[in-house]
Amino acid sequence: MAHTVDDLNAVLEREAPVLFQCLSPLGRAAFFPPDIPVQAEQARGKAFNATIGQITNGHGEILALPSIAAALQGLNRQDRNRAMLYSPPSGRPEVRKAWRKWQRRQVDDSIPSSLPLLAGGLTHGLSLAAELFASEGTPVAVPAPFWGNYRQTFTMRRGAKVLTAPFYRGGRYNPRALAECLEGAEPGRPAIAILNLPSNPGGYSPDRQERQSLLRALHDIADERPLVVICDDAYAGLVYEEDVPSASLFWELIGCHENLVPVKVDGATKEFSFFGGRVGFITFALDPGSPAFQALESKVKSLVRSGMGSPSATSQILLLQALQHPDIELEVEAVRRCLEDRYKALKQALQDADRELIRSMPFNSGCFSLLELPADSELDSNAARLHLLEHQDTGVVSIAPNFLRIAFCSVDAPSLPEVVQRIQSGLREMR
Amino acid sequence: MAHTVDDLNAVLEREAPVLFQCLSPLGRAAFFPPDIPVQAEQARGKAFNATIGQITNGHGEILALPSIAAALQGLNRQDRNRAMLYSPPSGRPEVRKAWRKWQRRQVDDSIPSSLPLLAGGLTHGLSLAAELFASEGTPVAVPAPFWGNYRQTFTMRRGAKVLTAPFYRGGRYNPRALAECLEGAEPGRPAIAILNLPSNPGGYSPDRQERQSLLRALHDIADERPLVVICDDAYAGLVYEEDVPSASLFWELIGCHENLVPVKVDGATKEFSFFGGRVGFITFALDPGSPAFQALESKVKSLVRSGMGSPSATSQILLLQALQHPDIELEVEAVRRCLEDRYKALKQALQDADRELIRSMPFNSGCFSLLELPADSELDSNAARLHLLEHQDTGVVSIAPNFLRIAFCSVDAPSLPEVVQRIQSGLREMR
Repeated sequence: MAHTVDDLNAVLEREAPVLFQCLSPLGRAAFFPPDIPVQAEQARGKAFNATIGQITNGHGEILALPSIAAALQGLNRQDRNRAMLYSPPSGRPEVRKAWRKWQRRQVDDSIPSSLPLLAGGLTHGLSLAAELFASEGTPVAVPAPFWGNYRQTFTMRRGAKVLTAPFYRGGRYNPRALAECLEGAEPGRPAIAILNLPSNPGGYSPDRQERQSLLRALHDIADERPLVVICDDAYAGLVYEEDVPSASLFWELIGCHENLVPVKVDGATKEFSFFGGRVGFITFALDPGSPAFQALESKVKSLVRSGMGSPSATSQILLLQALQHPDIELEVEAVRRCLEDRYKALKQALQDADRELIRSMPFNSGCFSLLELPADSELDSNAARLHLLEHQDTGVVSIAPNFLRIAFCSVDAPSLPEVVQRIQSGLREMR
Repeated sequence: MAHTVDDLNAVLEREAPVLFQCLSPLGRAAFFPPDIPVQAEQARGKAFNATIGQITNGHGEILALPSIAAALQGLNRQDRNRAMLYSPPSGRPEVRKAWRKWQRRQVDDSIPSSLPLLAGGLTHGLSLAAELFASEGTPVAVPAPFWGNYRQTFTMRRGAKVLTAPFYRGGRYNPRALAECLEGAEPGRPAIAILNLPSNPGGYSPDRQERQSLLRALHDIADERPLVVICDDAYAGLVYEEDVPSASLFWELIGCHENLVPVKVDGATKEFSFFGGRVGFITFALDPGSPAFQALESKVKSLVRSGMGSPSATSQILLLQALQHPDIELEVEAVRRCLEDRYKALKQALQDADRELIRSMPFNSGCFSLLELPADSELDSNAARLHLLEHQDTGVVSIAPNFLRIAFCSVDAPSLPEVVQRIQSGLREMR
C-alpha cells in the first residue's frame, strides 16, 4: 500500500503512464489518507471495536429508528442492517463484485476491467471522471446536441473547454464528430471525449459500419494526443434494432491504442429503472488486482469521501436484491421490451407525419427521439416548446436552437401517435 | 426568476452583500440553467408530458424491477413510487418542509431560516459549503484536534488554507480557539469558521458560560472580516448533561453581527441513526421566500445537479416515514438515552482509571471521547493504536500526534469499563 500521494503517483506513472499524464491537478493530489476508515478496517473483528462513529448495539447492528426500519421490512435482518450502516467510500464489496459480473456478462475473460467504484448516481460518476481528468482549459469533445449538464460538470465545475461538432450531418449520424471537435485543440494536449451511446438527446446508437468509423476516428485522435474516452453508458442495453450492436464501446476500446484511456460510467438509474436510488459506477480498463488500479482506487475513494462521505448503502442493498435475483435478466428485458414497443409506435407515428413540419432524426435506442425544426422556418425550439405547452397541452424538451426532444420512456405506446399529432398541429399553428 | 447568472449575483449582492462577498469563484459562477428540470417542471400536469427521462408507465408511475420494489414493501404504493423516481436536485418539497419543522421545533418564529436544501449526506453538505465559499487560500478556522476529512474537503478539493488553534487548553475547552486560528490571516479577507458542536473527535459541547465566550470570540472575528460560520451539526441533540445547552449555535448566530454569515449543515446520519441513507441538508439564515434565498437556492441546485445529479429519493422517503411518525421524538430520544447510558458508564470508568496513563479530555455529548497520551511519555498515538490492536484485541482511532478516540456510540455500556481497562493495560505495557 502506498503511504503518500507521491508513492501513489509514482506507481501510476510507472504502470499507466498515459492515464497519469491525463490526470488533472486535483487528480494528482487525490489520495485516501490512512485515517478513520483505514483504522476502522484494521479494527474489524477485534474483541472490542471502538473505532467508528456509527450508533450500533455494540455488536455491529444498527440502533435503527423503528419508523425507518419498517419501510425496509422487505429485506431480511442482515440486509436491513447493511442498508442502514455506512458503506465504504468505494462501495460495498459484494455490490461491486455483482455489478462487475453484470457488466461483463458478454465480455471475454481476457479483457481487463477493474472492480467498479460506487458513485452516487451516473452524474456523480461523470463528475468523478471530470475531477480526475479535467481542469482549466482541458479540451472536452462532445458532439452536439448533447445533454446540457455536461457543460455544468466539465466547464462550470472544472473550467474545462467543451468543443462540439455535429452529431448528425445531412440527417445521418456523423461518426467522425469527436475527431472534428478536437481539430482546433492545442496539439498534443491530453483531451477528453464523451461517448454517450445510446445517446441523450438523440436516442441513437451507431450500426456496425458506423461503429467501425467511430473507432477509426478515435484511433486518429489518439495518434495525435493522449485521450480519455468517457463512455457514458447511462442507457446501456436499451437498443431496439437487430442490426445495432448493444454492447458498450468501452470493451472494444480497451487495449486498442496506447494513447487511449477508456473509462466506463454506468449505473442502475436507467439500466435497472431505479432513478431515485442514485447508484452509479466508474470502471477502469485495469485488472482489479493491478497496482495501477489500486492507486487509482485510492484517488477515487478520496474524492468520494471528501465530496460526499460515502455512497448510499440503502440503495446499494436494494440494487443487490436485483443483482442476486435469478430472474434479473428477464426483469430487465421486460422493461426493454416495453420501451421497444413504444419505440416502434413512435417511429411509425413519425413516419406518418408531415415531413414539412416534422423532421425526425434517426433513432434506434435509449429513451428519446429528436425532432429538428424546419430549417426554412423562423421557429425557435423554446418558442415551439412553450406553444405546445399552452396550445396543445403537451410537454416536450427544447434543445436550443432548433431541436425538440420526445421522452418516449415516460409516455405509453398508445399515446405516442397523439403526441406526434399534437406536435404537428402546434407547429402548423406557429407557421 | 433570474434568467442569467449576472441577474442572480445582482440579487445576492443587493440583498445579502456580505454573503455575496464571501462567495468563491465557483459560488459566483453557479446558476441553475433553465434546461431539462425547469422544462419538466413547467410540463407537469399537462395531458401529455414527454419531458423527463424516467421510465414510467406513461402515467407517472415507475416501471420498477419487481426485485427492487419488493425490498420496499413496507412503503405504500405512492411512497414506493416516489422512492424510486428522481428527486428534484434541491430535494423533495415535503421532505424539506418536514425537516425544517424538525429543525425549528424549539426555535422562535421570529428567527429566519431557509428551507433546507438536500445534500447526499452531511459531508456533501460540507462540500457544498466549501464549493460556495472556499477557494485558493481562503482561511478556514478549525480548532484541533479535528475530523481529518475537513482537510480533504476544504484543502485538497478547494485549495483553502486550514488554520488551527487548540480546542483544549490546560485540559479544558478553549472558547477562543476560532479567533486564535485566524490571528495570522490576511486582514479583512473573508474567512470560514467551522463550528462542530457536539464535536468530533472530542464529544464536547460548551456549557452556558463557554458558549457566551465563544459567541464573543465570533463577534470579535466578525468585527475584523466577513465570516462564514459553518455549523457542522452532525451530532445535534446528542447531549448528556443537564447544564449544557443542546440547541445548535446556528440559531443564536442569526442576525448577531452584520459581517457574520451562519450556515447550518445537518442531517439524518447521526440524528436519525441512518448512516447508510446519506441524507444531509444545508440551510441558510434567510427567509424561504426571500429573493436572496431563491438566488442561493439556484446556486446550490446547480452544484448538486452538476456534481451528483440529484439526492437519493429512496433515502428521503425513508426519512419522511420517520418525520411523519407521531412518535418520532420518542424514537430519537430512545437512541439518545441509550448513548447517555454509555456516556455515563464510560465517564465512570475513565474516572476510575490510572491518571498517570489515561488523561481524559472533558466530554459531555456526541459519540466520542478523547484520551490524551501522557505528555512525558514517548508514546505516539498510532503506535499506541497498533499496540492495542495487537496486544489487547481492541480498536480505537489514533488522532495524531497524541490522542486516542473512543467511539462509545458503537460499544455497549457493559463493555466500556473493559475497553478502558484494556487501553490502560496496553499503555502500561508500552511504557
